[in-house]
Amino acid sequence: MVLRAMQHMERIKKGEKLPFNSLIFCNIGNPQELQQQPITFFRQVAALINYPQIITEQPELVKQLYPSDVIERVQKYLARIPGGIGAYTHSQGIECIREEVAHYISTRDGGIPASSSDIFLTDGASPGVQATLKSMIRDHNDAVMVPIPQYPLYSASIALFGGTMVNYYLEEANNWSLNVHELERSIQQAKKQNLTVRAIVIINPGNPTGNTLSETNMKDIVKFASKHNLVLLADEVYQENIWTNKHPWVSFKKVAVELGLIDPKDTHTNKGLQLISFHSTSKGYTGECGRRGGYMELCGFDEGVRLELYKLASISLCSNTAGQIMVGLMTNPPKPGDFSYKLYIQERDNILSSLKRRAQKLENAFNKLEGVSCQPAEGALYAFPQITLPVKAVEAAKKAGKAPDAFYCLALLDATGIVVVPGSGFGQRDGTFHFRSTILPPEHLLDGVISRMSTFHAQFMKQYK
Amino acid sequence: MVLRAMQHMERIKKGEKLPFNSLIFCNIGNPQELQQQPITFFRQVAALINYPQIITEQPELVKQLYPSDVIERVQKYLARIPGGIGAYTHSQGIECIREEVAHYISTRDGGIPASSSDIFLTDGASPGVQATLKSMIRDHNDAVMVPIPQYPLYSASIALFGGTMVNYYLEEANNWSLNVHELERSIQQAKKQNLTVRAIVIINPGNPTGNTLSETNMKDIVKFASKHNLVLLADEVYQENIWTNKHPWVSFKKVAVELGLIDPKDTHTNKGLQLISFHSTSKGYTGECGRRGGYMELCGFDEGVRLELYKLASISLCSNTAGQIMVGLMTNPPKPGDFSYKLYIQERDNILSSLKRRAQKLENAFNKLEGVSCQPAEGALYAFPQITLPVKAVEAAKKAGKAPDAFYCLALLDATGIVVVPGSGFGQRDGTFHFRSTILPPEHLLDGVISRMSTFHAQFMKQYK
Repeated sequence: MVLRAMQHMERIKKGEKLPFNSLIFCNIGNPQELQQQPITFFRQVAALINYPQIITEQPELVKQLYPSDVIERVQKYLARIPGGIGAYTHSQGIECIREEVAHYISTRDGGIPASSSDIFLTDGASPGVQATLKSMIRDHNDAVMVPIPQYPLYSASIALFGGTMVNYYLEEANNWSLNVHELERSIQQAKKQNLTVRAIVIINPGNPTGNTLSETNMKDIVKFASKHNLVLLADEVYQENIWTNKHPWVSFKKVAVELGLIDPKDTHTNKGLQLISFHSTSKGYTGECGRRGGYMELCGFDEGVRLELYKLASISLCSNTAGQIMVGLMTNPPKPGDFSYKLYIQERDNILSSLKRRAQKLENAFNKLEGVSCQPAEGALYAFPQITLPVKAVEAAKKAGKAPDAFYCLALLDATGIVVVPGSGFGQRDGTFHFRSTILPPEHLLDGVISRMSTFHAQFMKQYK
Repeated sequence: MVLRAMQHMERIKKGEKLPFNSLIFCNIGNPQELQQQPITFFRQVAALINYPQIITEQPELVKQLYPSDVIERVQKYLARIPGGIGAYTHSQGIECIREEVAHYISTRDGGIPASSSDIFLTDGASPGVQATLKSMIRDHNDAVMVPIPQYPLYSASIALFGGTMVNYYLEEANNWSLNVHELERSIQQAKKQNLTVRAIVIINPGNPTGNTLSETNMKDIVKFASKHNLVLLADEVYQENIWTNKHPWVSFKKVAVELGLIDPKDTHTNKGLQLISFHSTSKGYTGECGRRGGYMELCGFDEGVRLELYKLASISLCSNTAGQIMVGLMTNPPKPGDFSYKLYIQERDNILSSLKRRAQKLENAFNKLEGVSCQPAEGALYAFPQITLPVKAVEAAKKAGKAPDAFYCLALLDATGIVVVPGSGFGQRDGTFHFRSTILPPEHLLDGVISRMSTFHAQFMKQYK
């Protein structure tokens, strides 16, 4: 898909006439590429901390360019970062930023304590996920339960490390929720194959599904992981991207603490659940994908595991400082009373409310298309509609040597310049076809995108009826 | 060592009296932690590219803070980076920066062509090394030849990926040069064990040894790798850190091209040698370790291998943009005629000439110590002296359950606050003992460091005589 899109771009550059003038990349959650503006305070700190000597050398100019709380934050960081941001940091990450993360988690979870020693700062969420998978997979008998559909980081990493992926299917008809009977079916089947299931991955809000889990559902999952002694890998990178009013987002840590399966005052002992939660600067309203900023929090692991993960991190020395700083800013944004607070809140709320409107608009638009059904876009940056393809389209796809959903998505791309990802890239129940579209096209372009998609879809359905 | 050093730091903070007031970290090549100043132009671009809207919003202020070539560079980058530095980039790295890298390599190698499509930008050199090792190691029968002593990234990564490390020993008496007979001995022994040797690692300038290879020696190595069909992994991260006047630094690519084993006009075909060269923003005079910026260049690999490495990179989406930008700046610094050129040259030369003086001073100082012999510090950021320890010291170490060189280094730390790394951390011939010290203590502190070390050493030798 991306390769074909690039070819189209080249052709447009060369002046060739195509049915569209520009490509719209709805294939990847990359907000700033689609004109989402960064948070000013975050960028001001990121700028000044790269060239901080001007604070003393040109104080008047600096005050004209940067608000006081930006200057203070830079000075606060530099006082705690030996050598500045050009030096290697602690392999677990800069301590004062891990303290900001711990404070953020604790506040988010209604006061449940969190400790900076449980936090690892990582180059985005992906390397954290990979490190924990790597540490759990000894050979192909070690298995990890992964939802279908899933974000391909999981399938790719498990394959890379030589483990086995055990599928469990989300219930599409029930808004992609998680059914414990399905989890039991899945683990029993794995056990029959003599696999050692070591962990279960949950993505909440869901990618590619855009669902959010209810707290009841989460309790069941936590009990299931605890019962089967599975590490719960909680991919919570979309925790700020909540569009539903049905229930607030709750962390797996909070749910497990309330069930008594994690003791936040003694996180170095397994009290029933071992949990690793991942977060990132790439999503939410921060949208700073290119930074590669992220963290993971460990709960219920003894010191030995922590040390192994530390050793693993130290092979590559440390995660990048720009990403670490962005994690600090994301988890400790301006507070009421700070100079930058008002602007920060305005920018944050504009981004989130616009994303919410776009999520609903896309969901509605998809549901209006013939043979398309889209579950509520409750969170994350995606909609994942199911398409019932005409038999003739499936046959034409077979003839072309393509998966039917890929066939549809390529036709969409060729006709409209809109890039989405076929469901087969994430996994789906046999015989069903989906695609994932981000909700990220800029709001002033969204009606156009929807109209191009709808026209294409009607023609496609007519052609293969 | 580091743990003990941290404990000492805590004790000093608490006001406890120790034989020293501060610690000196000579254990890691982390220049900016030891007061090396960043290059101003690099930091100005890094700052402004984080907050570029002020170029249009506050043009007068910006001109007072930033030279014209800084502003131009930022605009040049942003014109080529869709979405700015907050967006994911191409998984191989931002194209215009890969072009800068290719141009740098070509200029460095006297005009031998280089192509941006052969370049992968990485989060420092380490992830590049890890990706290539990962792609070559299928199981423990796949082996990689690694010099002893070596930088532990190699041993740790090979172990992590389940491969086998095959040692070859550098010739200490011959300034840590590489003897082809030793390479042959090493590979024949591996073959007797039915190992498939797939690659050979060369670190030039050497880490921890601080040597540089002669071109004759490099030719022998290239022929050896070619003869045995080994991928040559050239760790060339210290290519700017050359202190010897004996010979200039030459890249393995240039040597291989001159031998006709790489065709720079057709790097996608194996013409006799497959080479991957690694470089980093962490060393040289850039010293920006915390950025995690680096690149690798592939020569002699077909498109399939390239695509596999691209897929591997794309699992984690891309390397961090701050590191990528720093790679661009390192490889394309200000040129004659640019506003920032004079300051840049002055800063660069100050750093390099000071490092050179420090390398020589430390080498001389080590060679004056009883029972210590230090090979010429010809390059990189390290000296790696051998210590002949008294029998009683070896016995005392055994009693304490420590390796003798670790015993010596801990005693040095406890007496002086100076942190170095025992030779056993890098590997050394049985029965020999070494330690690695960086040459990085600030110049105004170096005499004090040497005097503390010398006093300690005399006392240690006296105690165990």
